[in-house]
Amino acid sequence: MTQTDRDLLPEGLEDRLPATAAVAARVTRAVLDAMDGHGYSRVQTPTIEFERSMASRMAGVQPRRMFRFVDPASLRMMAIRSDITVQVGRIAATGLAAAPRPLRLAYAGQVLTIKGDGLDPARERLQLGAELIGADSLAAAAEIVALAIEAVQAAGATGVSVDFTLPDLVDALAAEALPLAPEVIEAVRRELDAKDAGGLVAAGGAAYLPLLEAIGPFESAIERLAAFDKGGVLTGRIAALRAVAARVGTAARITLDPSERHGFEYQSWFGFTLYADGLRGALGRGGTYTILGQGGAAEPATGFSLYPDPLIDAIAASEPARDLLFLPLGHDTEIAGRLRAIGWRTVAALDAEDDPRRLGCTHRLDGQEAVRL
Amino acid sequence: MTQTDRDLLPEGLEDRLPATAAVAARVTRAVLDAMDGHGYSRVQTPTIEFERSMASRMAGVQPRRMFRFVDPASLRMMAIRSDITVQVGRIAATGLAAAPRPLRLAYAGQVLTIKGDGLDPARERLQLGAELIGADSLAAAAEIVALAIEAVQAAGATGVSVDFTLPDLVDALAAEALPLAPEVIEAVRRELDAKDAGGLVAAGGAAYLPLLEAIGPFESAIERLAAFDKGGVLTGRIAALRAVAARVGTAARITLDPSERHGFEYQSWFGFTLYADGLRGALGRGGTYTILGQGGAAEPATGFSLYPDPLIDAIAASEPARDLLFLPLGHDTEIAGRLRAIGWRTVAALDAEDDPRRLGCTHRLDGQEAVRL
Repeated sequence: MTQTDRDLLPEGLEDRLPATAAVAARVTRAVLDAMDGHGYSRVQTPTIEFERSMASRMAGVQPRRMFRFVDPASLRMMAIRSDITVQVGRIAATGLAAAPRPLRLAYAGQVLTIKGDGLDPARERLQLGAELIGADSLAAAAEIVALAIEAVQAAGATGVSVDFTLPDLVDALAAEALPLAPEVIEAVRRELDAKDAGGLVAAGGAAYLPLLEAIGPFESAIERLAAFDKGGVLTGRIAALRAVAARVGTAARITLDPSERHGFEYQSWFGFTLYADGLRGALGRGGTYTILGQGGAAEPATGFSLYPDPLIDAIAASEPARDLLFLPLGHDTEIAGRLRAIGWRTVAALDAEDDPRRLGCTHRLDGQEAVRL
Repeated sequence: MTQTDRDLLPEGLEDRLPATAAVAARVTRAVLDAMDGHGYSRVQTPTIEFERSMASRMAGVQPRRMFRFVDPASLRMMAIRSDITVQVGRIAATGLAAAPRPLRLAYAGQVLTIKGDGLDPARERLQLGAELIGADSLAAAAEIVALAIEAVQAAGATGVSVDFTLPDLVDALAAEALPLAPEVIEAVRRELDAKDAGGLVAAGGAAYLPLLEAIGPFESAIERLAAFDKGGVLTGRIAALRAVAARVGTAARITLDPSERHGFEYQSWFGFTLYADGLRGALGRGGTYTILGQGGAAEPATGFSLYPDPLIDAIAASEPARDLLFLPLGHDTEIAGRLRAIGWRTVAALDAEDDPRRLGCTHRLDGQEAVRL
């Protein structure tokens, strides 16, 4: 094939050809339908916004990761969205400020960053998610975790597992039971996150060493966390994690990694990461957090985001071709319409030369009947 | 409401709140499902591309209407897509160059322009469409027109009408039956498009005056066009229009405006515009055209694009609120799951204070039964 300059796509940007695009559409529908069933109403946000409104709404958004440019109309800086959560937060604080809480919203859309993420060179990704705004309680966390699992399973993920974390664990312990000098807190967090026992001791966090044991399958790890929590500072959090786990039940395997911080820097008491069989890396993550509400007041929220591109690719790779029914010239269009209404996909001949097999058809309409080719 | 700078959206960019977003999703699904049923496979294109590859692919794209910026990775100029048709043309010429023809592709996505269009200040619009690549025959035109009508009707449009045009009419007549000096052709086209009889005569196109009578309801207008076509230059085109009209049958009202050019500058022999009741302006347009195929060779194509935002707004404005079932604390989750499976939308109480009416619920789960509030 002659590949001219005109045909090149920029690094990290791709087309989805039919097999993958069909799966992407199905996965998106399945996730949105699951969220809709639980009362999460879809909202849609613009592809671009003023950079300032995206950057100032939530600490987790890094303006330097966004594509930015000057708006010829306003002469102000705009950016392509890199995260829809922030935009949903804006909607909750503006257009839906007066809507009753808790407010359940869902979204699906493409997000872009100027650089890929670690090993993944993709600069455009599909983001799907749900936000429960006005609540960050145990009940909110349990609903969101259960919904995230149901949504990814509806989308076709198998062997789903969830890893729970307690993002503000070190702050909570340092404030009461295991005091730390303010200047070492960040180092202790970092060494715990890195699971580096030596580094943790060197950083002055020897008292936190048992946390590195409270990692693994949920039931045993939470026992070790409870045993470590002699002062009872974590009693509420531990009870909450147990309740969320009970709500999940057998729907997914649960693990605990209480000191995991990476990706949860802006979450409050609870965070979780979703994994599924056959997918490298996380399928999504979520937790409790705070949005900038109406007039700048903080509003609690719980939610999750999925980045299902790897799941879509995995499903598409193992998907059989769809049936396709060839309609010869002069076919009965009413019969063809009835067959489409019961789920057949048809291709009508445009001229006598059209070859059903070459066009990928699996069946041919013969009178009133679909006959396998 | 305190409206801070942080909360402002740029001119021409909007959020879709739940009522409208739900309709947008339904309309998109209905159109894509109609296209899929007729063998049009969805493809997905990146939100941004190199400006050059979008601008050089098709004469109809105006680079100056696109948001443009430098890609920090390649240091080359990129643009946000303003038209997905061009991108689908690129896919047909690259990733699907070897796929058998005719190739049926469908798409849905957001497109952006730096300025709104005439009276409509929107700078972001939903574009849905189908392309039949490798054919621009009468059969191709008939399939595309019929599909466009079926798709918008599936989406909820009523009182659909289609206006046919012959974009290269003046060129065809000027080349044979009614010669025009090369320097007046453009003026004749313009005056015909403006339906200005005086201007047409002044421009030297007096012989073309009868075309201004061949406008209106299809059956009578096509008769007048045939009567005008004494030399028989248009015989093939007239027969083709009649055949396309016969295919449409009673599905939509048809009109003819053979010299309409606006918006069809890049179409070949056939163009059409779709209208529906209650919508100001066109719902979509389509026709036959040429794409830059593999290695730069021209490839014939037929297709249509819909811009359904006004239809979505009209449907949302008259839509009743959806039923919503409140699940009290301690409800039977299995029963709730079964009700969702048969189509109920549920909202679970997070605490005892949650008030079903305030949350917009229409029903409440009482034991196994949904009871109207």
